[in-house]
Order: sequence, then C-alpha cells, then structure tokens
Amino acid sequence: MIGAPYITRNIPVFDVLSDEGAEKIEAQADRLLWEIGLEFREAPEILQIWKAAGAEVDGERVRFPKGMLREVLKTAPAQFTQHARNPARNVEVGGNNIIFAPVYGPPFVTDLDKGRRYGTIEDFRNFVKLAYMSPWLHHSGGTVCEPVDLPVNKRHFDMVYAHIKYSDKPFMGSVTAPERAEDSVNMARIVFGDDFVDQNCVMIQLINANSPLVFDATMLGALKVYASANQACIVSPFILAGAMSPVTVAGTLSQVLAEAMAGCALTQLIRPGAPVVFGAFVSSISMQSGAPTFGSPEGSLLLNGAAKLARRLGLPFRSGGSFTASKTPDAQSAQESAQTIAATVQAGVNFCLHAAGWLEGGLCSSYEKFVMDADQLAMMHVLAKGIDVSDEAMAMDAFQEVGPGGHFLGAAHTQRNFESAFYRSTIADNNSYEQWLADGQLDAATRANKIWKDMLAGYTGPELDPGIDEALVSFMEERKASFPDSNV
Amino acid sequence: MIGAPYITRNIPVFDVLSDEGAEKIEAQADRLLWEIGLEFREAPEILQIWKAAGAEVDGERVRFPKGMLREVLKTAPAQFTQHARNPARNVEVGGNNIIFAPVYGPPFVTDLDKGRRYGTIEDFRNFVKLAYMSPWLHHSGGTVCEPVDLPVNKRHFDMVYAHIKYSDKPFMGSVTAPERAEDSVNMARIVFGDDFVDQNCVMIQLINANSPLVFDATMLGALKVYASANQACIVSPFILAGAMSPVTVAGTLSQVLAEAMAGCALTQLIRPGAPVVFGAFVSSISMQSGAPTFGSPEGSLLLNGAAKLARRLGLPFRSGGSFTASKTPDAQSAQESAQTIAATVQAGVNFCLHAAGWLEGGLCSSYEKFVMDADQLAMMHVLAKGIDVSDEAMAMDAFQEVGPGGHFLGAAHTQRNFESAFYRSTIADNNSYEQWLADGQLDAATRANKIWKDMLAGYTGPELDPGIDEALVSFMEERKASFPDSNV
Repeated sequence: MIGAPYITRNIPVFDVLSDEGAEKIEAQADRLLWEIGLEFREAPEILQIWKAAGAEVDGERVRFPKGMLREVLKTAPAQFTQHARNPARNVEVGGNNIIFAPVYGPPFVTDLDKGRRYGTIEDFRNFVKLAYMSPWLHHSGGTVCEPVDLPVNKRHFDMVYAHIKYSDKPFMGSVTAPERAEDSVNMARIVFGDDFVDQNCVMIQLINANSPLVFDATMLGALKVYASANQACIVSPFILAGAMSPVTVAGTLSQVLAEAMAGCALTQLIRPGAPVVFGAFVSSISMQSGAPTFGSPEGSLLLNGAAKLARRLGLPFRSGGSFTASKTPDAQSAQESAQTIAATVQAGVNFCLHAAGWLEGGLCSSYEKFVMDADQLAMMHVLAKGIDVSDEAMAMDAFQEVGPGGHFLGAAHTQRNFESAFYRSTIADNNSYEQWLADGQLDAATRANKIWKDMLAGYTGPELDPGIDEALVSFMEERKASFPDSNV
Repeated sequence: MIGAPYITRNIPVFDVLSDEGAEKIEAQADRLLWEIGLEFREAPEILQIWKAAGAEVDGERVRFPKGMLREVLKTAPAQFTQHARNPARNVEVGGNNIIFAPVYGPPFVTDLDKGRRYGTIEDFRNFVKLAYMSPWLHHSGGTVCEPVDLPVNKRHFDMVYAHIKYSDKPFMGSVTAPERAEDSVNMARIVFGDDFVDQNCVMIQLINANSPLVFDATMLGALKVYASANQACIVSPFILAGAMSPVTVAGTLSQVLAEAMAGCALTQLIRPGAPVVFGAFVSSISMQSGAPTFGSPEGSLLLNGAAKLARRLGLPFRSGGSFTASKTPDAQSAQESAQTIAATVQAGVNFCLHAAGWLEGGLCSSYEKFVMDADQLAMMHVLAKGIDVSDEAMAMDAFQEVGPGGHFLGAAHTQRNFESAFYRSTIADNNSYEQWLADGQLDAATRANKIWKDMLAGYTGPELDPGIDEALVSFMEERKASFPDSNV
C-alpha cells in the first residue's frame, strides 16, 4: 500500500509574476512592515522578543526596520524532513517537492447517504483512514474534520491519537491553545522519543495570521510552543481579498509577504534553524454578497504570485488545495477544485493542505469529494513527471512496425508499455452513452460514493508498537482526568 | 454586446518540454518523414505536387528529404487576420493571441429539458446565437452540431448561412467535399467581395489527418480548394494515442509534428503565403476498454508539447478545448474540461476549437455545458491578463487608510476598484448552505439551464445588409435545386 512518499516535480514552475513585479511587491512589503507595522495582540512575551531583536515596539504595534526580517530569516532551512512514524512515509518539505494533505478544519461532514451533519470522532477517524489508504495523499493532515461530539478542550488528544493509531503518515498537531500544543508535542515524544523530537521535525502546524497585519495570542502561543520544540510552523496569512486585504492581486500579495515574513522570522528568533514554511491562504470574495469565492482566476494569480515571493525568500511554500464554494460535489465543485489544484502544482507549492475532501468553502468535509479529489491528485503525479523523452518513450520501433494507416494497439511497443501508459481514473466514466445508460446513468459523485465505502470496508491499519499505544492511551487518560470538560 | 475580439496574453507560456526534448522529437519526426513517409490516398494531383517539390513518391507513399518541409514552410505567415463581416470582430491568429470557438462536429445535442437527441438546423442556429451572445467566444466556429434533419450533401449551405445571418463573428467553412468547400468560398465572396476574399482570410477550416501518417482524398480536396482561395487551413493530426499513435507522449508528439508539417507545407505549395495553422487534436484512450479519455494528464502533456513544437516551427497553433468523456454536465465533465482549458491557455494555443459545449467525447453538443464552459472562458480572460503591478493595483493608500485589524470593504481604494475587481461567475453559487437550501439546492447544471434559455429568449441578431442576404439565399436556392438530395 506504500506509494511515492511525495512528489518531486520534473516540470518547471509556471511563473506568472515578472521579476520586476516581484521587486515592486517586495518594496511595498518593506514599507508596510516599517511605516504601518503589525500588531501582536495580548502577547507581551512576543513583544519583548521583537524589541530585543531590534524592532520598534509601540504598544502592541511592531515596526520592522528595512532588511531586519530578511536577516533573521537567514537561519530558516530552505528544505527539511518531516519524519513519519513509518520512515518510508517521511516527507521532504521544500525544493522541488509537493506534499498533499487532506482538508483541514471543517465543522461539518457530508456524504450522499446521510447528508450534511456535524463531524464526529468517527468521521475524523474515517478521513484519517481514507488518507492513509490513498497513495495520492502523502500526509495525514490535522483537523480533517472537527469531532464536535468531543469537548473542545480535550478533542485534540483523540485527534492526534487517531493520526498516530490509524495511519503511519506524517501529521499535524493542535494549535487552538498553547497547552494543547504542548500535549501534541508530548504525544509525539512518546512515539518518537524526546531526543529525536528535539532534533527532528515530526509535526507540522498551521499558524494563521489574523489578517490584516495582526497575529493573535492563540496563534502566537502555539507558534512559540512548536518553534521552541523544533517543530515546523506554517505561518499563513488567511485572507479573503477585498475584505481582509485590498481588492487587487498585487496589493494583497504585498500584505501576504509582510505577514508571512514577520511570522516566519518570529520562529527563528524563538529557535534559530527551526523548520518554518511560508504559507498563504488567499481567495477573493464576491463583491456583491461578501461571500468567499474559490477557483477564481484571481485566486490562481494570488497563489502563483505568492509562490514566487516565497521562492525568492528561500522558504518552503504552503498554499492551494482543492477548493470550492459549492455545497454539493457537482460541476461547480469539480471545476473550481480542478482550477485550484492545477494552479497549486504549477505554481511550485511545496505543502498543499486541503488537497482532498474540501467542500462548501471549507465548512464541510465530503466523503465523495475526498475520493474525487484523490483521483485528481493522482493525475497531478503524472503531470509533475513531465514528458519522458527516453528512447523507449520515443517509440521509433512502433512506427517501423505499424506504418501509415495502421493500428498501434497490437504493436510490440504498446504491449511493452500499456500497463503504465495512461493514468486510469477511478471516477471517470469513459464508456459509450448506451453503456452508461445501461449502467444506470450514474454521475461522478454517485460513483465516488461506492468507492469511499469500499475503501473503508477494506481498511486494515498499520501496526503500532503496543507499548507506545499503551503509553499514549495512559497519557491521554491522565491528562483528560486532570481538568474539567469545556466547550471553549 | 461587443467584448474583446480575442485574448492577447500577458502571461508567459508554460513550457513543460525541454529544448533538448523538443530537438529529439524533431529529429525523430524527420526520420518518420523520410524513412517511413506519409500516404496521400486517392489524390493523384497531390502526389504530383509533392513530386514536383522534390519529395520521393512511391505509389501513394511520399517520403520527404530532411529539411525539405521546413524550407517549404518558410512562406507560411506566423500570424494572420481572419476577417469577420463586422470588422470589430476580426481575429488575429498567431503570436500571443488566443481565440475561442465553440464545439465542432457533434451529431447529437442535449439539454436538461429534452434530453439527448439528434441535432437539427434549429439547434445549429441556437448554438450560433449563443456563441454570438457570449462575450467570451470570439468565433462562431463551424459544425456547432450536425443538422441531421437536412440532407448531408446540402446542409453546408444552411450551416454557412446561419453563421453569416445569426452572428457577425468569424466562422468556418465546409470540408466534407471539395464542391462543398467551393460553395462555402462562394458564399464568402458574396459577403466580402471576390477581390477581398482573394487577398484576405475570411474563413478558417479544419483539415484532419487520417492518423497515423495518412491524408485522405476528402480532406486533401478541401485543403486544395481553401489554400487556392487564400483561406486558412488548420491541419490537425486527429489522434487517440495508444490506437492511432504510440502509447507514449514523446512518440505521439513526433507523429503529430510529422503529420502537421506535411499538411501545412502542402498548403504552401498550392499557394505560397496562404494562411495555415499547425493543429493537434490529441487525447489518449483507456487501455482497458479502448474508449477515448479526456482531461487526462497525458492529454495536457501532449497539448503542451505540441504547442512548443508549433512555436519552434513559427506557425500559429490550434489545439485544446473544454473536453470531457462524461455523458452529463456533472463533476467529471467540469473537472476534465477545467483541466483541458487551463492547459490550453497555458500552453500558448492560438486557436481553440471546442472551447464551449463539448460533451460525451465530442458526440454531443450540450446547451448547459455551453454556458458553463463560457463562464470558464471568461475566467481564462482574467488569468491571461496576469498580475497588474501598477501603482493603483499596489493599493498602498488602502493600507494607510485601513491599518492592522481593519476592514477593506469600505476603503476608498476598494470603492474605486471593486466594480472591475473580481470576475463574477454566472454559474457558481457562493451563498451560504442555508441560502442554497432555500434556493432549492440547485446544482451548477440546473443553474446553467436557466441561463441559456434566458439568453436565447433575449437574442437579437446583428444587422445583415438585405442585398447580401438576398444574394446568399438566391445562391443557395439555385445550387440546392441543381442536384438531388443525398445522405452521403
């Protein structure tokens, strides 16, 4: 069941933003950082760190002299390994690599049988299992859905445990409070050992900016825990352009760069050399209704431009996914997701969260969408390989055998190569109209419904050392018993 | 109702094939042309042309000495104007331009109300009207569907007339027999005048190779008529890789290049300087069932590689479209179409047939798919503009006004720019789940159904000079009366 642990791209990046354009955006980011500055709210400790590093601190507002953040960022690695408990699943974050991880954060789940409802820990485990079983997802992700049936202040135990127990792919820790981040790190220590965790990245976390130009105490608290523990932070401006940034691509990009530089640099002041990723979650809003939109051309341009800014900064880049605003796995959902995942791969994204399962602007994890997206991710693997021009791929002997007007199906070259020749979609129906009628006129979503149910029915988990399993369970039970349930 | 007559791209091409790879493929195409050769079937006149130009002719097999075709192709223009009867609709074929034209060839049509049935001349006129009304289609196309209710040997009159009467965008002529090509040219002469047609391109035609390595008498006859009349031919290898070419991307590309070079060069021997387009219709087949597949990653690589080969040859390039094998406008349809249209724009295609309406592997023109595709084409217009880094787009004043934690919706910069800020999809539903429920839980296809019906209900045609109209109708009536109906 082990596929390639991640994609190493053999195609160039598609570079939409000119070098001159990038320089203009960088110059404006420098101005934003100095003339306007960022706010770090309810985080006096962080303000102290900035002050000591040479920033101007005025209340919660921090202004950065030109060049300061770039200097601080020099200790950040251009590429790093995130270790999985199965070393064959380790991923290399950065460089020419692409890592696909599932959707993150939805409070709701949906499938064609039961419809839309709040997510539960059972749903959470199901999505972990599906990501484990798909060769096209390289990572188990984090909050694959919110397990709303568990208390808010304790569900992180069950989430991290599910990633460890039901998968052996790399995973993400909790960021909703500093103590939950600590719990996550401690669970990783049980699995990997204290020294190993101190010296290696075994978890990667999503730290969102509170755009525009604000970081809040929750995110800063989690960032500090993880950076101190040498675990990776993805510092991501979370922007719906037009509301949380200007209504233009270039203006928004200057804000993305300012926010990401500040957040990424902070990790280096906390622990120089700690792994960090330049993140960007950026889409636009409908200027009629204010609703977020996905799969838009502006979204693709924002993604592409941000990737270039990260590349110029020498940091691994996280963005993209299989986005849609649709409420159902219909044509809108597929069109928007296809546009964003193609843009993701072409832009040179290194870490792609939300690669499978995302529906309804991220409010809902869809079982059908998950396997439909996985099929797309498989195609991205083929695309990223580029064009093979080996002698075998040139197929000169096939032409010599077949000649004008002939048929290649029976050619020796075809026989030698057809097994690996063309990707076989698990979702597409390529049959004739008559055959499709006879098969019940199913649409893609209905075919996907059968696939995920078959996958879950056939799930067999990876082995987990019983001693580690027991230690994890004891740790969780003790911690859970030590404080009361709460839903904040 | 007049939009931009075509796209001039402001983004670079996405170049997947390396220069070394392209050279290897070109070298093999030269070998195919000389060592194997092409067959020109039942076309003694064409064989004479090749012989006179220095090719080796053996029966119907023609072998081309290395360099011969490239030399002949030197007279072909790198870019040319196709004139429309409304000069504001003229299109520039080649260079950095992209022209979108509707689906070509389907015998069937479908919509959500009446389902799938054979196309009629009424359907044909409807698709011409929809293409006329959409600002995102630059071209009226050709066989937008087959009008199966008209006799095969006379329907070309009504098709060409419909393009002239119900639209003022540029269009395509008939290629199904040399005399039907002559009729098409004669109808164009009535509209544009004899001298103008002789000196300018007013029609563009699809000439398919009978791959592998064969051109048949029908296509050669039409090619000869159009090239002689100085009208544009799109010479297109029509390849389902694995059956009509080797099962590999690189091998198939060498065949595409050999076939396109031979067909394009032939137009130059018939009339040096005649406008010609390097075409490539290439997809793969399912190696399980033999059925054609669309939207595959191999299809995107083939398209991208062929674009580079055309660019290196200095010829305008036709390929791509909004392809799908799906039988219904579902998620499969949208995903496959999104992947192919994105690949089309990024590869640097100049003329894109099948940009809207294609369903079921090209067997069916879909009304809903037509307007869904048009929405995608609109987004491609935005994408092709790239990233504006003007001072206004940089939005520095918005940051100065809003500051950390603020909201950009009310900013002066937002007020100045929001009208043109983000493309507003006509198909996507970006509302909340609750609003979507209240609106009837419609999927994208159902929303599209209303759009095309509203469009047709609101159609008002462009003016056509009554004298020209009368002359066209008289010409058709006389010609139709001069020979019996036939269904071949």
